[in-house]
Amino acid sequence: MNNRMIRYIISRILCIEIAFIFIPFLISFYYHESSTIKIAYTITMFFLLVVSFILSIKLPKNTRIYIKEGYFIVSISWILMSLFAALPFFISREIPSYIDALFEVVSGFSTTGASILNDIERLPHSLLFLRSFTHFVGGIGVLVLAIAIFPKNNDEALNIMKAESSGPMYDKLVSRMSYNSRILYLIYIVIIIIVTILLKLGNMPLFDSIIHAFGTAGTGGFGSKNTSISYYNSAYIEYVIGIGMIISGLNFNLFYWLLLKNFKQIYKNEEMRLYFKIIIISIILICINLYPQYKNISRLFRDVFFTVSSVITTTGFSTADFDKWTAFSKIILFILMFIGGCAGSTAGGIKISRILILFKSIKGQMKRSADPNRVTTIKIDGVPINKETFMKTTNYAILFISVSLIFILMIAWDIPDIQSAFGAIAATINGVGPGFGAYGPASNYSSLSGVSKIILSICMLIGRLEIIPILILFSPSLYRRALKNNK
Amino acid sequence: MNNRMIRYIISRILCIEIAFIFIPFLISFYYHESSTIKIAYTITMFFLLVVSFILSIKLPKNTRIYIKEGYFIVSISWILMSLFAALPFFISREIPSYIDALFEVVSGFSTTGASILNDIERLPHSLLFLRSFTHFVGGIGVLVLAIAIFPKNNDEALNIMKAESSGPMYDKLVSRMSYNSRILYLIYIVIIIIVTILLKLGNMPLFDSIIHAFGTAGTGGFGSKNTSISYYNSAYIEYVIGIGMIISGLNFNLFYWLLLKNFKQIYKNEEMRLYFKIIIISIILICINLYPQYKNISRLFRDVFFTVSSVITTTGFSTADFDKWTAFSKIILFILMFIGGCAGSTAGGIKISRILILFKSIKGQMKRSADPNRVTTIKIDGVPINKETFMKTTNYAILFISVSLIFILMIAWDIPDIQSAFGAIAATINGVGPGFGAYGPASNYSSLSGVSKIILSICMLIGRLEIIPILILFSPSLYRRALKNNK
Repeated sequence: MNNRMIRYIISRILCIEIAFIFIPFLISFYYHESSTIKIAYTITMFFLLVVSFILSIKLPKNTRIYIKEGYFIVSISWILMSLFAALPFFISREIPSYIDALFEVVSGFSTTGASILNDIERLPHSLLFLRSFTHFVGGIGVLVLAIAIFPKNNDEALNIMKAESSGPMYDKLVSRMSYNSRILYLIYIVIIIIVTILLKLGNMPLFDSIIHAFGTAGTGGFGSKNTSISYYNSAYIEYVIGIGMIISGLNFNLFYWLLLKNFKQIYKNEEMRLYFKIIIISIILICINLYPQYKNISRLFRDVFFTVSSVITTTGFSTADFDKWTAFSKIILFILMFIGGCAGSTAGGIKISRILILFKSIKGQMKRSADPNRVTTIKIDGVPINKETFMKTTNYAILFISVSLIFILMIAWDIPDIQSAFGAIAATINGVGPGFGAYGPASNYSSLSGVSKIILSICMLIGRLEIIPILILFSPSLYRRALKNNK
Repeated sequence: MNNRMIRYIISRILCIEIAFIFIPFLISFYYHESSTIKIAYTITMFFLLVVSFILSIKLPKNTRIYIKEGYFIVSISWILMSLFAALPFFISREIPSYIDALFEVVSGFSTTGASILNDIERLPHSLLFLRSFTHFVGGIGVLVLAIAIFPKNNDEALNIMKAESSGPMYDKLVSRMSYNSRILYLIYIVIIIIVTILLKLGNMPLFDSIIHAFGTAGTGGFGSKNTSISYYNSAYIEYVIGIGMIISGLNFNLFYWLLLKNFKQIYKNEEMRLYFKIIIISIILICINLYPQYKNISRLFRDVFFTVSSVITTTGFSTADFDKWTAFSKIILFILMFIGGCAGSTAGGIKISRILILFKSIKGQMKRSADPNRVTTIKIDGVPINKETFMKTTNYAILFISVSLIFILMIAWDIPDIQSAFGAIAATINGVGPGFGAYGPASNYSSLSGVSKIILSICMLIGRLEIIPILILFSPSLYRRALKNNK
């Protein structure tokens, strides 16, 4: 491994984090917050500066980065960023337990939105901002941002992007994306600005509008109120955020094509079509199922639309307490959590494009089962998919389910009932936030033990980074080679 | 499609069923049962004879059977056999609802062991025998038996065997199996005889011993007592059945090799090793988890050993009410239900050999992810596995999980809580029998609606026949061709 280059890149990432922390630091002055809070930011930035400086003492001799090193850099960066970003909350004593602060920050970076805070509204403005700002950073990824800011040669960038981006990779898109990580961020910022303006027009205070725009575009789900979106009790705000979440769950390449006025490419995009189909069918099924419980149809549709949009995009904002819904509706939500949004969006889950590949793969297999001599070529958006992509996708889905089951088992040691255990893992590994049972939308994760909070934090990171980078981090053979190269 | 040949084979299967029904008919005389019951058997046999006769009026011109037709024959045969075998229960009014009778019989043939009977002990001996005898028939498969009785040319037999046998296929084994379906049945009968003798030695009445031997070797789970095995309250009986179930969950080829004294082949069998590893690890984990609840270690081990053995082999006999266990232990059982026994056994589930292939496939994928130029060949029992087998296996696993989720969703419309819905489907599609919550070991499925009972019956058949034959039955293109060929 090219250890010097790895250290150099991580040092750069930590420099970017100093800039991140600097924003809430400024906000704390604007809102005249206590000096404890200002000191907490200062200490954090100082630590970041020292570590960043130490890591960059030896400049790299060559800048070559392989895919394995890409995975390594991404995992370590996300873990370090979380460890540091938890400090302002902990040092200011606003979150007295460091594990709790870490949980909250990992939840933010992974755009999960699961919280341990019993009273969100008590938090000072600057910390509320920092909490939601982690969604902005985590949404597309900090390394993508680093590439946008410090242009690198293309191979390197590609190997880091591969490790941080979500969904299966069509090589063409990736290379285009790595050239255009700036455009990607631009699209992202435009969505945030539009959502902010629309929310402000709905009489939401500007600060809250920005916070919720981060939560919407990053499909994170952190807000500024204890009762999430239901606090505002406004159909307008719910539809703005609901539609905003659905848009943020789309593949960002679609917006890129929109800029290029390539409407045909957008129209024939099978992932987008499947995404909308799943949303519409889920809304219809849940509406039919819940109709006897609701008297008001427009209220029913409003709640179901918002919840489906929030759950499939793995955002986790809530208006209705879906834990009180019927088993049928809850199981649909449970399935939606695992499906997740489109590849190349800020959403979590297995991703629509993978579901599409799996579905087509099974269909092809069925045809071959009935007629073994049949040759089946499977296309997506008119492009034939090769066998390796199939293998990767099916293996990923099975790995994802297996890892989820292992985490469910681990957390069940601490959680008394099966439903809550399934819900907690489904909500964290997919980046939703609120689950079912004891950890539903009306509750939070504060009652868990420290060990369980760490387990869920790992679960959130694993879900966001799509398992493999984190697993490779724990692969002993990697360290063996790293040590060898270091001598 | 070769419709005449299909009709001819189905007619033969129904003839075999007449022989099956004749056994409890004789038993009803031995136990001096009421004439209603004797008449019920007579009517059933008469119907079978008529239908069988009609189906075989036109003799087939050629005997060629393709794989698609194999699937078709298997699905139709199982459905017809169940429809007829339900008649004695229904006509004798021992099970007054035909849907209930069908549920019970499908549960028997699919070696599930899920019951709608609130009072099993009330059933006359001959019907109790018939109920458990369906396990014997369903265990290895009635078409395998048909091939054993009426030898056919090898290709045909192969295509039917492929459709009925369980687990992924290594072609070598199949062809050997089709030559040796008699040996397969011989091994099966020997296991039943040994279990019967051992149970009889433990002071179980002969009739009960035979019933429980069917349930054990067929990994079905139908017994003759309302409280299942706990009725006998004997450690000896529990260990005999517990070990018997584990043995019946092994690939029957292992016994064949044992006959050939090919110990090396048995020793290096990776599926068997993984099977035992999973059993041992599960027992240890559950024992540690439940230790605080139990005071008596030998009682704890006895209950856990029996339950793990019963659940992984998808038998469903019970001694302890595992629904009262902790969430952690129940989730392990839930996972074991889906893992199931070895391929080529009478057990259900995804099958150990598939889990082995999945595990190796993911491992290979991980290595390639970290090091894209790496070439990985994956071997099982020293034999390299080709890509098609991988694709088949991963696709099957995903199909199995997807189908399970769809059934969970369907049944959730009728079942009030998520845990019971997950449990009911896990217990039926995998052929276990008792699930969790409302349908745990201390309860049964009698409270469900008629529609739900039909859904679960389909679920049991789909699980036993490994999905594809049943799905192909519902494929419209097949009928179109069948009608075309029929003209």
